[in-house]
Amino acid sequence: MESLLQQSRAMCPFLKRTSPTALRTLATATRPSTSPGGGTMSNLQVLARRCPVMSKALAVQSARLAHTKRFTSCAAGVPGMNSKYSRPTTGKRALHSTAGNGADVAPNVYKESQRVHPGLSGVKPRFDSPAAAVSGPRPHAPATAQFNYNAFYQAELEKKHKDKSYRYFNNINRLAKEFPQAHTASPEERVTVWCSNDYLGMGRNPDVLKSMHQTLDTYGAGAGGTRNISGHNQHAVALEKTLAKLHNKDSALVFSSCFVANDATLATLGSKMPDCVILSDSLNHASMIQGIRHSGAKKMVFKHNDMVDLETKLASLPPHVPKIIAFESVYSMCGSIAPIEKICDLADKYGAITFLDEVHAVGMYGPHGAGVAEHLDYDIYASQDTANPLDTKGTVMDRIDIITGTLGKAYGCVGGYIAGSAAMVDTIRSLAPGFIFTTSLPPATMAGADTAIQYQSQHQRDRVLQQLHTRAVKETLKELDIPVIPNPSHIVPLLVGDAEVAKQASDKLLEEHGIYVQAINYPTVPRGEERLRITPTPGHVKEHRDHLVQALQTVWNDLGIKRASDWEAQGGFVGVGVEGAEAANQPIWEDAQLGLQTSEAVEAAVEREFQTAAAEALSKAAARMQTATPIRPAPAATSIPVGVAA
Amino acid sequence: MESLLQQSRAMCPFLKRTSPTALRTLATATRPSTSPGGGTMSNLQVLARRCPVMSKALAVQSARLAHTKRFTSCAAGVPGMNSKYSRPTTGKRALHSTAGNGADVAPNVYKESQRVHPGLSGVKPRFDSPAAAVSGPRPHAPATAQFNYNAFYQAELEKKHKDKSYRYFNNINRLAKEFPQAHTASPEERVTVWCSNDYLGMGRNPDVLKSMHQTLDTYGAGAGGTRNISGHNQHAVALEKTLAKLHNKDSALVFSSCFVANDATLATLGSKMPDCVILSDSLNHASMIQGIRHSGAKKMVFKHNDMVDLETKLASLPPHVPKIIAFESVYSMCGSIAPIEKICDLADKYGAITFLDEVHAVGMYGPHGAGVAEHLDYDIYASQDTANPLDTKGTVMDRIDIITGTLGKAYGCVGGYIAGSAAMVDTIRSLAPGFIFTTSLPPATMAGADTAIQYQSQHQRDRVLQQLHTRAVKETLKELDIPVIPNPSHIVPLLVGDAEVAKQASDKLLEEHGIYVQAINYPTVPRGEERLRITPTPGHVKEHRDHLVQALQTVWNDLGIKRASDWEAQGGFVGVGVEGAEAANQPIWEDAQLGLQTSEAVEAAVEREFQTAAAEALSKAAARMQTATPIRPAPAATSIPVGVAA
Repeated sequence: MESLLQQSRAMCPFLKRTSPTALRTLATATRPSTSPGGGTMSNLQVLARRCPVMSKALAVQSARLAHTKRFTSCAAGVPGMNSKYSRPTTGKRALHSTAGNGADVAPNVYKESQRVHPGLSGVKPRFDSPAAAVSGPRPHAPATAQFNYNAFYQAELEKKHKDKSYRYFNNINRLAKEFPQAHTASPEERVTVWCSNDYLGMGRNPDVLKSMHQTLDTYGAGAGGTRNISGHNQHAVALEKTLAKLHNKDSALVFSSCFVANDATLATLGSKMPDCVILSDSLNHASMIQGIRHSGAKKMVFKHNDMVDLETKLASLPPHVPKIIAFESVYSMCGSIAPIEKICDLADKYGAITFLDEVHAVGMYGPHGAGVAEHLDYDIYASQDTANPLDTKGTVMDRIDIITGTLGKAYGCVGGYIAGSAAMVDTIRSLAPGFIFTTSLPPATMAGADTAIQYQSQHQRDRVLQQLHTRAVKETLKELDIPVIPNPSHIVPLLVGDAEVAKQASDKLLEEHGIYVQAINYPTVPRGEERLRITPTPGHVKEHRDHLVQALQTVWNDLGIKRASDWEAQGGFVGVGVEGAEAANQPIWEDAQLGLQTSEAVEAAVEREFQTAAAEALSKAAARMQTATPIRPAPAATSIPVGVAA
Repeated sequence: MESLLQQSRAMCPFLKRTSPTALRTLATATRPSTSPGGGTMSNLQVLARRCPVMSKALAVQSARLAHTKRFTSCAAGVPGMNSKYSRPTTGKRALHSTAGNGADVAPNVYKESQRVHPGLSGVKPRFDSPAAAVSGPRPHAPATAQFNYNAFYQAELEKKHKDKSYRYFNNINRLAKEFPQAHTASPEERVTVWCSNDYLGMGRNPDVLKSMHQTLDTYGAGAGGTRNISGHNQHAVALEKTLAKLHNKDSALVFSSCFVANDATLATLGSKMPDCVILSDSLNHASMIQGIRHSGAKKMVFKHNDMVDLETKLASLPPHVPKIIAFESVYSMCGSIAPIEKICDLADKYGAITFLDEVHAVGMYGPHGAGVAEHLDYDIYASQDTANPLDTKGTVMDRIDIITGTLGKAYGCVGGYIAGSAAMVDTIRSLAPGFIFTTSLPPATMAGADTAIQYQSQHQRDRVLQQLHTRAVKETLKELDIPVIPNPSHIVPLLVGDAEVAKQASDKLLEEHGIYVQAINYPTVPRGEERLRITPTPGHVKEHRDHLVQALQTVWNDLGIKRASDWEAQGGFVGVGVEGAEAANQPIWEDAQLGLQTSEAVEAAVEREFQTAAAEALSKAAARMQTATPIRPAPAATSIPVGVAA
């Protein structure tokens, strides 16, 4: 017991500083307003609720107590509930319990409202629902000051204003037929979008739009229910089959978003597996951080992409304990890529399972767009379309236990999913509230996403072009000494290092150059690492790129933003101006995979690819016009003027 | 200190039963596999991780410790991160921290993979990301048994099979042009859907579909980003304006779903407001239960719709403490309706704010479809469209602090929202990860939902017809002694009281009668209260209703399911066969509001309403055909044959 106390003292700065006498006083003294029926609250309990550790523990405890009471108390209030048909419950939480009958009623409680509000005189008495009548002696309302909710909101907002993390949304309307351009709040004003996650322009892909239009007409706007209650249909079946095939897994499951998929899956596994520990990369996305927190499981954060740290943490855990290693393939705000295979090795060694978020990689990497895991075995997966496919057993993608992805970025639609073994997916399907209790994605959304995945699994062009454009942008910016945070992926993050300046740069680009690049500030990146995050697409042809580079030069000069050489002179920061970082961050898409021979200039290839793309688009457009479908194809990119706002 | 210990002992059954000596031993003995760098773990800590209270506390604590370490540890791994430009952090969690540079790199760590998998020989070496190389002495992998993940999944699924709560999804493809019919997995087989939450058939509304088609063509399939990064647009602005106006509030905010809206809003407010207590109706939806749990705030569950219990609990709390009363207007599985006005009275008295989920009520109640809160001041809100609008100050809807709703049920699309004061909405917009870090709803979805809301705010017909059809169904089933759980709303829940029988009844209806009504089992309702939940729509005309009733009669006979009189003979259960329950559950839509005069038969009104509706639909269809838009209107309901599967 003594050691438990000592542990508590070691952990808690409050206990450390407080004398036993003071604690005794706190624990016995109670707050003035005690409840007539709900027990008293000691001052120590009031303090405990402010403690970040104890408040959670108390909340969990009170939730459990409340739950244990729930069925009994409902039954007590409902006539007939105490009959022999009221079954004993298992003590498990009924998530949407309707222990009552929707009536919970003592007859004759309908009464006219006693209280007439200002302005309501002459209006019929309102409906009062059953059990609404409050009877018996009421406790008096306390006279002391109540909590000021509005002041609380204002204070929270004031904090955001003060530290410059308050967000102003830009009204950007991306035009399908003028991709990558958009109009602002004014329908006439054009800007070029350089920061969308519609990485491949699939949001305006004619096949996707056609499939959505047809599904809308035949099956309507919405799913009309949860997957269990009238919201399951052939589109969900087909999409999940396509996703399972894409990732070479037994099964897949679709969610409202990948935020929900990550949150629900980690929370469910972490809370259900006994003593589960989740090992989480330090740069993991908010959705995973939230899922882990919600699981209540023990969390160990390992240093970003640091295998020594991960192994140290894995080795510190008892072998029989379930462990989930949660990480991403492409980290979206810096573009770094995880050492996926080494993580699989460690998982095998220590009996962990791997949870890989491919949100920023699906559609973008691998011969079928299945992500970085597929890309790592490029030739094997490319061979799957041939007469003699190679065995995929033991490939990186095969070794990953749970892959999660989105339908809302490279696939151009909305929604998220998990893929993995049939038993794992069925478990999540059966247990995760975030899946069970929510309306399905609309049939047209699922059909559009299905079409997008299939299109990208059959066409390499978009992601190759995207990579070539990315290389071209990075190359040119490097020449101009504009600080690109080095990385091997399709993301082009420019280091600014100040929240206010980053916003000013973004505003200037938009207002003076007709270019939209959102400033990325806290909490999306840590304070001091504010950046502009540029995402080239297949549609960002040379004239767009030239315009972007010239605009960035101007803005960097106007605002006196640090150049790469400035960072270097100061010892380097987040990879910018760091010796060797460039060389260590060669693109994951290799020259040969992009069809580049070693000596060939990137720019030439870009233009060649682009000419092919434009020709294809034009011939497709012509064919389409002849069949007279209602969908007009996106015009070939060549015809797009570079957008500069007035 | 002694009293703290005694408190712990009183709370914890484990501490109560364990001797001080045993505790001391547990606290000193450590597990065999100690970590080289991560600290040891005592057996007591291992046990603590199995404790529902302590495991949460430990998880929270470890997350906090890990976070405190995060920035430092990342910085340590990154060249240049220790420079003077590395700013001190506030210690707050950066939700998507990219403290690293995407490189975290020591140069020259690119190595070829050392490990060749079966089937991979002859394949190019894979890309290895920076910092991937594991060097130095590695701890040995433990030899003892590792966790069996597959056995865990199988055991979880086996539990669901055993207690009959395993769910089989029905493949139901709702046909826009044959509403309320659908086809099954076979495109030729027709069934009539009687359990969709597309309560008003807005999923096939021609105005909604037209607006979606147009938006798809102009703005593409997806939003392409989060609201902060290229996913904010005129459709979001317009939709949130429409929603704020609908609920007579300053502002509104759209989420991926109302599950996310409820979860994110309650979790954010509950965790940010100091010492917050959330008072939650015992029948609240899973999304609210989850939000409250995620907030870590103290939760007090009050008996369903029981104002005495709510007041007792409110009075037990210190006055200065922030309190949120979270409840629903229509409880979807039993159809009960909250005493909203009385809850506002209690909130005022005790300084609480009200959080009202109108998910099953928006579109369905009130002169503009704003929900039950609007319906309670029907005449005042109806007057808003006239030359002399009445003052809405002090109305029930005006008094509610936070209203949440869905775009995926009566509005026929997908998505959810909150509405309230500008400061509250801006606070959630600025702080809730579930809003900030997820892709926006697609422009076409937002445009469709906006159209649906506006349409329903201008047309009473659908919800009036829905109510008339509901009355007709309830009336007929009552005459046939089929047990309808009494309630004042649009839901028709039939009590079955057994999971297996409920599923059999649902299967029989589908297979033998071409009627789809999903069985509702645990965890959606408590065990023993399994039911069939029927939701009439404006499209369920007399021939559909006759067919439903005849099919239910047959199934009730075939399976020997208890009749209302059987429940009554046994003392009644969840309102069925309970004296006075019927009378106490008169519909909230009053006769006069439905255009019924006292002596007029409901059925006559239904048919009259229906004729008008059919005529309107036909004339609209004719007008539309002349303008030759690509959208075909839904055919008038009269032409729909009653669907019976072969």
